[in-house]
Amino acid sequence: MNLLLEKIKNEGRVLSENVLKVDSFINHQIDPKLMYEVGIEFARRFKNKQITKILTIESSGIAPAVFLGLELDVPVIFARKRKSITLNDNLLVSKVHSFTKQETNDVTISKDYIFENDNVLIVDDFLANGQAALGLINLAEQANANVVGIGIIIEKSFQEGRSLLLEKGYHIESLARIKSLANGQVSFY
Amino acid sequence: MNLLLEKIKNEGRVLSENVLKVDSFINHQIDPKLMYEVGIEFARRFKNKQITKILTIESSGIAPAVFLGLELDVPVIFARKRKSITLNDNLLVSKVHSFTKQETNDVTISKDYIFENDNVLIVDDFLANGQAALGLINLAEQANANVVGIGIIIEKSFQEGRSLLLEKGYHIESLARIKSLANGQVSFY
Repeated sequence: MNLLLEKIKNEGRVLSENVLKVDSFINHQIDPKLMYEVGIEFARRFKNKQITKILTIESSGIAPAVFLGLELDVPVIFARKRKSITLNDNLLVSKVHSFTKQETNDVTISKDYIFENDNVLIVDDFLANGQAALGLINLAEQANANVVGIGIIIEKSFQEGRSLLLEKGYHIESLARIKSLANGQVSFY
Repeated sequence: MNLLLEKIKNEGRVLSENVLKVDSFINHQIDPKLMYEVGIEFARRFKNKQITKILTIESSGIAPAVFLGLELDVPVIFARKRKSITLNDNLLVSKVHSFTKQETNDVTISKDYIFENDNVLIVDDFLANGQAALGLINLAEQANANVVGIGIIIEKSFQEGRSLLLEKGYHIESLARIKSLANGQVSFY
């Protein structure tokens, strides 16, 4: 994914040692060609996993997930973030804490779209502390589905998400792995 | 767009005379093949408009917008919905009232991605009362861009959005136009 690494180098803005902004091609403006390439690369890396559903979270996970879904010919489900929800029998709910925003949200999916024995691939734009990925895993597992992998566009490898997920035995594929954001510089593995 | 009309007929759920749920292929689970076809059809209908940017709103507008963006080779910007924002010099803000949810949200885009003389195509999943589309138009016009058209997947033609936008002279292309949801039935034009 040289195209992705180049974009991060040229357009990513390092706001602090922990924060990288990629609003010009992923999180606000979307570069469709790059997201298409990301989808194709996820498909290549997970092609033997017999994926039946892709699970992502609004809003920035949707673009890579739908290109991947088209390539693999499987549906995409996006979890919704809500401040807090009124109980609803038809929803699966997981609490997700955002360290960046210092807030906890309910993340929900309907019970109607992920089933027992589904092979679910989780897709997200960033992996940092792993809270969003763990929330999505929790939703899939509440539905008794199998989580067969986690596809991440940008991993901040110096934060704890990667090791948390590896400890639990999940297969992670991150297309850009960032070693450090120190001194306003992005360095990759 | 027969594929779309078939999907609506077979999987859409009429919850009331005003509410059609399409959670199984657009608003929660996404059918990537259908969204690809929607993107290609928008591209065909707006191909002479010299579009330079696509503007949509999170979350359900993103999937059709990115397939369209790939086809036309232009960036996609998704506006964010927020309960209410703290003033920020770099944001354009518009108030959007949702009649369905009975709430008013701030809808925002950064000033960094849409410019004077951009030819902006607005894309959304539904056109009902037109409030979301008018909010997006307002954002693009605050940036002094030209709004060259509005691409809608499902138009509830019996609500006032279509006529409001036509009165103001905008070009609308809706892929499914619903005449009525009376008696639990979807009838198309």
